[in-house]
Amino acid sequence: MSHAHLAVVGGGQLARMMQQPAIALGLRIRLLAEGPDVSAAQVIADSIIGDHTVLADLEAVAEGVGVVTFDHEHVPPEHLRALADAGHAPRPGPHALLYAQDKGEMRARLTGLGTPCPRWAFVETPGDLAAFGFPAVVKATRGGYDGKGVWVVREAAEAAEAFASGARLIAEELVDFRRELSAQVARRPNGEVVAYPVVESRQAGGVCAEVVSPAPDLDAALASEAADLAERIAAELDVVGMLAVELFETADGRLLVNELAMRPHNTGHWSIDGAVTSQFENHLRAVMDLPLGPADPLAPWSVMVNVLGGAVTDLDAQLPVVLGDVPHAKVHLYGKAVKPGRKVGHVTVVGDDLADVLADARRAAALLTVGSPA
Amino acid sequence: MSHAHLAVVGGGQLARMMQQPAIALGLRIRLLAEGPDVSAAQVIADSIIGDHTVLADLEAVAEGVGVVTFDHEHVPPEHLRALADAGHAPRPGPHALLYAQDKGEMRARLTGLGTPCPRWAFVETPGDLAAFGFPAVVKATRGGYDGKGVWVVREAAEAAEAFASGARLIAEELVDFRRELSAQVARRPNGEVVAYPVVESRQAGGVCAEVVSPAPDLDAALASEAADLAERIAAELDVVGMLAVELFETADGRLLVNELAMRPHNTGHWSIDGAVTSQFENHLRAVMDLPLGPADPLAPWSVMVNVLGGAVTDLDAQLPVVLGDVPHAKVHLYGKAVKPGRKVGHVTVVGDDLADVLADARRAAALLTVGSPA
Repeated sequence: MSHAHLAVVGGGQLARMMQQPAIALGLRIRLLAEGPDVSAAQVIADSIIGDHTVLADLEAVAEGVGVVTFDHEHVPPEHLRALADAGHAPRPGPHALLYAQDKGEMRARLTGLGTPCPRWAFVETPGDLAAFGFPAVVKATRGGYDGKGVWVVREAAEAAEAFASGARLIAEELVDFRRELSAQVARRPNGEVVAYPVVESRQAGGVCAEVVSPAPDLDAALASEAADLAERIAAELDVVGMLAVELFETADGRLLVNELAMRPHNTGHWSIDGAVTSQFENHLRAVMDLPLGPADPLAPWSVMVNVLGGAVTDLDAQLPVVLGDVPHAKVHLYGKAVKPGRKVGHVTVVGDDLADVLADARRAAALLTVGSPA
Repeated sequence: MSHAHLAVVGGGQLARMMQQPAIALGLRIRLLAEGPDVSAAQVIADSIIGDHTVLADLEAVAEGVGVVTFDHEHVPPEHLRALADAGHAPRPGPHALLYAQDKGEMRARLTGLGTPCPRWAFVETPGDLAAFGFPAVVKATRGGYDGKGVWVVREAAEAAEAFASGARLIAEELVDFRRELSAQVARRPNGEVVAYPVVESRQAGGVCAEVVSPAPDLDAALASEAADLAERIAAELDVVGMLAVELFETADGRLLVNELAMRPHNTGHWSIDGAVTSQFENHLRAVMDLPLGPADPLAPWSVMVNVLGGAVTDLDAQLPVVLGDVPHAKVHLYGKAVKPGRKVGHVTVVGDDLADVLADARRAAALLTVGSPA
């Protein structure tokens, strides 16, 4: 007999951060973890060790539990359908999650909806790519994340690795963008939706480096368009839980959809400390079919900076340094071993003055990354 | 080999709420729980079941762990000294905790420090009590909480139960108070201290019912005096961790110390949602000898209302009702079975207008208690 209210598949930091609002709301999570000591398994009492690509392991974590949600988007769609057929409620469901799992399906569907996207095409051969034109961004339709499975190619020879990978590929125009934005919404099964402030996401090496909420100096009409886009995509794709729509703001002031993520997303981590209801709480509220909470900010500005593995290898030893230097920084460590470039934590600072907030957040993250103020 | 950074003795809601900032700071808790499914054991992966009055059980939870802290104040002082002698660091230490465990010791010590207290005396016989005078508040020096072990007596006959209890007793004057206040500080081993806003605590039946932060219309000099008192007591008693000083504001505008608690306290639960650094985070930071975080409020007003067991017996079923009715209420459920009057959760609302915040918090708590808006 399970006491669990919901199952979470995947033991990364997103599942870990779901546990904080789960504790508050009295929602008990049963976790399917990749190993006994992965990030979320360290902080969730009821864990099963298993493989998210093995149906029997998914069935084991879901046994006696209605709602199943996810730390990542890598559960095979046929397994999600099997869980649904067995009476569980995977949220988001396989019909929605497909569009976060497969960039080709996503582009085709969004194009069908009239959503603004970069020019794109499926490319099966170098000839297809040449016909598409250069420069281009070649993407594996499945399995890529944080810059993996993505190749920026300016001539045919640069696409050799992509074609050699065996992956199904799409090509997209290389967008001349001013910056990247992210529009997040939470959506319940009944269609209730809450939109978060549209944020600016700053990348380094294909990985999110920092997020400013709200996006500074964003034209009000564009902000509204971005939020509307996210709400419309969530509704059309029947997303349940959090949806992040990563957007390009083009040099000529348009929005183009870059990626979709159907789970709490790195561009929403600021909301733990900066919003009335965090993305993690609203993800739980949404998948559990509970009324959503307001996404209003608690302060004019929130800045989140990722802690990516760097010179600091002992985060415990550095913790007194960062808390002493920036006592108001909200430090989040994921319980992961430090490896170069790996996301091992993040820092959020909220306040009234953007320059101060940005400087403090960067300083705190630098102390946890390179070991000295940036 | 333990991965734990600290041990927490006692599996109640205070230990449960420590887990949320422990997750953020990457601090791994090993819990000594009263049973496999008590409040904190539901949400902490590394739990040992045992009895806090049994030294072997305390040694088991502390094995390989430096810092030991507490969900409650009931660990026998001799066991705390044994842990300290074995090289662990009980925080607060036994020399400090004594004054939260024993009301007689507390009164004697505070009187020695010149701290304003109600008039008081040890009473061993009805004759002692008659000499002290009526009305009086008779208290068992040890083991009482939430109104238990406290007798308000207006004549000798009413003290029969107290004397029959076999407990060591003190008598205190029945204070004519305007209201109850609470002043909380966090204190590190090196003496660094952070003071929280002084709050008003409203009791019902000897149990905290609601807390308003900051205490409305509190004279600035009294607020400052209350915070200074808490800082001074923390320093003099060498408290490490959170200290709550419960105070009477007398009808004639003085402060008198009522009780001390050396742990996160019900009068500080508002800080989870209403302060830059919650009392639970600062308790962890203090006992782990990490720099403390600011206690500044996130909004002008925070109101916390306890959810005491009432007509609502199925909190899960009531959760959609309360979240739908007051979406911005921060609901905290403790994973405890509902029993009449038992603390099973709390609700906090923060905002700019006290009347609104108070009404919303009461409404949300009432929906979880009696099942309808207050």
